[in-house]
Amino acid sequence: MKQVFDVAIIGAGHAGLNAVKEVRKLTDNWVLINGGPLGTTCARIGCMPSKVAIHLADNFQSRRRFERYGIHGADALALDQTSALEHVRDLRDTFVDLVLANTTDEMDDEHLLEGYAEFIDAGRLRVGDREIRADSVIIATGAKSMVPSPWQERFGDGILTVDTLFEQESLPKSVAVIGLGPIGVEIGQAMHRLGVDVTGIDHGKQLSRIPDPEVNRAAIDILQREFPVWLGHESRIERCDAGFRVYSGERVAEVEKLFLAVGRHPHLGPLRLERLNVPLDPHGVPMHDPETLRIGRLPVYLAGDSAGGIASLQMAAEQGRIAGYNAVHRRPRRLARKTPMAILFTDPNIALVGQRWDTLDHDRTAVALQRFGPVGRALIMGQNRGVLRVYADRRSHRILGAAMIGPRCEHLAHLLAWAIECRLTVERTLEMPFYHPVIEEALQDALLELDKELSTRRQPKRFALFGRRTATPTPAGA
Amino acid sequence: MKQVFDVAIIGAGHAGLNAVKEVRKLTDNWVLINGGPLGTTCARIGCMPSKVAIHLADNFQSRRRFERYGIHGADALALDQTSALEHVRDLRDTFVDLVLANTTDEMDDEHLLEGYAEFIDAGRLRVGDREIRADSVIIATGAKSMVPSPWQERFGDGILTVDTLFEQESLPKSVAVIGLGPIGVEIGQAMHRLGVDVTGIDHGKQLSRIPDPEVNRAAIDILQREFPVWLGHESRIERCDAGFRVYSGERVAEVEKLFLAVGRHPHLGPLRLERLNVPLDPHGVPMHDPETLRIGRLPVYLAGDSAGGIASLQMAAEQGRIAGYNAVHRRPRRLARKTPMAILFTDPNIALVGQRWDTLDHDRTAVALQRFGPVGRALIMGQNRGVLRVYADRRSHRILGAAMIGPRCEHLAHLLAWAIECRLTVERTLEMPFYHPVIEEALQDALLELDKELSTRRQPKRFALFGRRTATPTPAGA
Repeated sequence: MKQVFDVAIIGAGHAGLNAVKEVRKLTDNWVLINGGPLGTTCARIGCMPSKVAIHLADNFQSRRRFERYGIHGADALALDQTSALEHVRDLRDTFVDLVLANTTDEMDDEHLLEGYAEFIDAGRLRVGDREIRADSVIIATGAKSMVPSPWQERFGDGILTVDTLFEQESLPKSVAVIGLGPIGVEIGQAMHRLGVDVTGIDHGKQLSRIPDPEVNRAAIDILQREFPVWLGHESRIERCDAGFRVYSGERVAEVEKLFLAVGRHPHLGPLRLERLNVPLDPHGVPMHDPETLRIGRLPVYLAGDSAGGIASLQMAAEQGRIAGYNAVHRRPRRLARKTPMAILFTDPNIALVGQRWDTLDHDRTAVALQRFGPVGRALIMGQNRGVLRVYADRRSHRILGAAMIGPRCEHLAHLLAWAIECRLTVERTLEMPFYHPVIEEALQDALLELDKELSTRRQPKRFALFGRRTATPTPAGA
Repeated sequence: MKQVFDVAIIGAGHAGLNAVKEVRKLTDNWVLINGGPLGTTCARIGCMPSKVAIHLADNFQSRRRFERYGIHGADALALDQTSALEHVRDLRDTFVDLVLANTTDEMDDEHLLEGYAEFIDAGRLRVGDREIRADSVIIATGAKSMVPSPWQERFGDGILTVDTLFEQESLPKSVAVIGLGPIGVEIGQAMHRLGVDVTGIDHGKQLSRIPDPEVNRAAIDILQREFPVWLGHESRIERCDAGFRVYSGERVAEVEKLFLAVGRHPHLGPLRLERLNVPLDPHGVPMHDPETLRIGRLPVYLAGDSAGGIASLQMAAEQGRIAGYNAVHRRPRRLARKTPMAILFTDPNIALVGQRWDTLDHDRTAVALQRFGPVGRALIMGQNRGVLRVYADRRSHRILGAAMIGPRCEHLAHLLAWAIECRLTVERTLEMPFYHPVIEEALQDALLELDKELSTRRQPKRFALFGRRTATPTPAGA
């Protein structure tokens, strides 16, 4: 068995597999080390199964519109949770198989090593009883759902996370979703629609990290029509006959299970990173160059969820490619900064694009607010709740960012992200083609509002050249 | 009553109303003349009611996925066509009211004149027994569904068009949809899903004017899974006991009603345009400058569907604004050419963007084909039939156009249209942000394929500088 490699990649997730793709362009002398089941986070427990559950839940939910459409008999529809969860697992297994078929299934024992790796030093790893030497090492070990240890110890039997939810034979009757970040909100709504009595709880006042106050308010309002959303207080938990009693401020819910979505942390424990003698951040992540992904001057790289930061498949792929490339090249490639985009696949979708509300210079930002209420296509779909906010720079007239909750916003988010990435102004974006009747027209209306605001502001600015400004512009929409 | 106006606008549809908006910025001395019921084509019979019917039909159709998802009882769902049509009319009336409330409802008798106008000469109109003089006239009289007169005479009682369909109390048991352009295909699929026994017939071999052969083939294949689609033969009709017998080549269908969608023609008859002494095209449309919309040297302008061309609300609005502006200004504005986009709101969507297959220079075009089959999000939605084709210029690497049938393609069409409008290359478009798991990733995959093809072709081209080219590139995908 070979002991010396050009590159060792730890973790066969999406980042690790993309790193392998880059490495093998230059050398065949690499090894991929994977502990635990094969398959990416995305396919096994992340994006894919959750979106299947959401899609299924939204389909079941659509029965509520049926009577209005003249479709009778919706009352007789019943969801068999066991079959529903089986469908989720079936499709999940398909996705896992698709991933494996094109990657690890094709690797021989020389290249794929099953087991957990730990560092001996920067160039040596121990995997079981084997010792491996590698010129470069790529850490791509992913992340794990965090469960605070006091809760794990006392309530562990009642705790579900996204890592375990889809393994259940059936869903609990009632659940407290603790943590209303993206995962909590998506899964909370899906469970509610699948028939679970859901109470959503978060210590913060923002739903799912939405910094824009208008969109945050709209999102809370829309979700609260479906299930209770309790914000602003830490959760306290105690056992009771029914299962658990969860307190949030003065409110209390009795639930059968706890769904914890209080964050996912880099899964670095088994690696013994302290042996690298590099500074670690509070989550145990080694300090590294965020562009080259290299840890200090060591030939060790971090990629994907194990590098911390926002979990994203596209980011994991890109970081994997960069780390893989840099592991076998002298001249490093750097991660290009793209317009950030975050999408929640709730119904309606929630999305953030570009600059966030809390980082805007409000004195030089124009803000448009467009409700989906009067948008033709949204009315047609019977899904016209929501609001779109678009931010533009008063001087350059460039679109800076947007926040939104509304139907099909995942697609508006892409359009806006591309417009921002291309540095388009409001005026130029209005020259882009729009069809009819489409949800994109909500964006067109928001841009028309911005255009009006930006052009009326032009006049006083010109006059200002000849005299003292009489009024200071106030932050719009603040 | 006033007889002399700066501008007379004939037709209170979307084009006419937008013309008014421009005109009234400069003068209050205008009159809007409208024959027939108020309300735009879009709201009354076009985009809106058809999309409501499609949405409703798609919702009813979704029951077929329910059993797979563990949702039991779908067999008991039943559609009450009368209620369904009422829902369509209710929502349609809402849209009409919304249009009227912001426009004609606010006009007084001096500005809004009900009746059909005819030209006496370029500066004079007769409306009923009134004669009106106007310095400029804008024709915005819309279009009408065409029914060949021999059919109208012999089978008129059995003919439905989009102008009359939504007025029915119930739907026929069976219908032959004659003409499979955009309207025929959209309405045909919707009627089928609402329980009508539909046979689709067109004399051409392209479904809905799709010039790309791969996408055309996929579209025919997908639609034929739902109802028979007979292409390539003229329809012949005769009466029979059941209603009508419709022949297409050697095939024959017996149907209760005929739905005709063989085109919509400019509605210019009552205007007596021959009195303007200008050349008319075969549809009776006066020759006019397609950019300024002016008819010859006369102070008469054409806008919207009455100008011929592809019907589109956004185009009608823009033409209305241009005609309105030019009617009151010396220096004309010109219609800016935008990247063309056509979307069919079938399920799955069909869309054409940018340059069409039949206008490409295939020697210098690279073509990517991406099926929706393996696209993660499409699999999740259980809607993974379809194909996306993207065309790029081999020299500049710019995206030229695309054709597609697939889930959520209306949104891919917008992204692609914007990328083409911004003259993005394939490489630059790949730098745009993509989320996961989204339908947009189908586009990402198509672009990756194009990028590969364009970069492998780069090598021989460089060598070609130093010697004779050894091979002529063949049209890709031809």
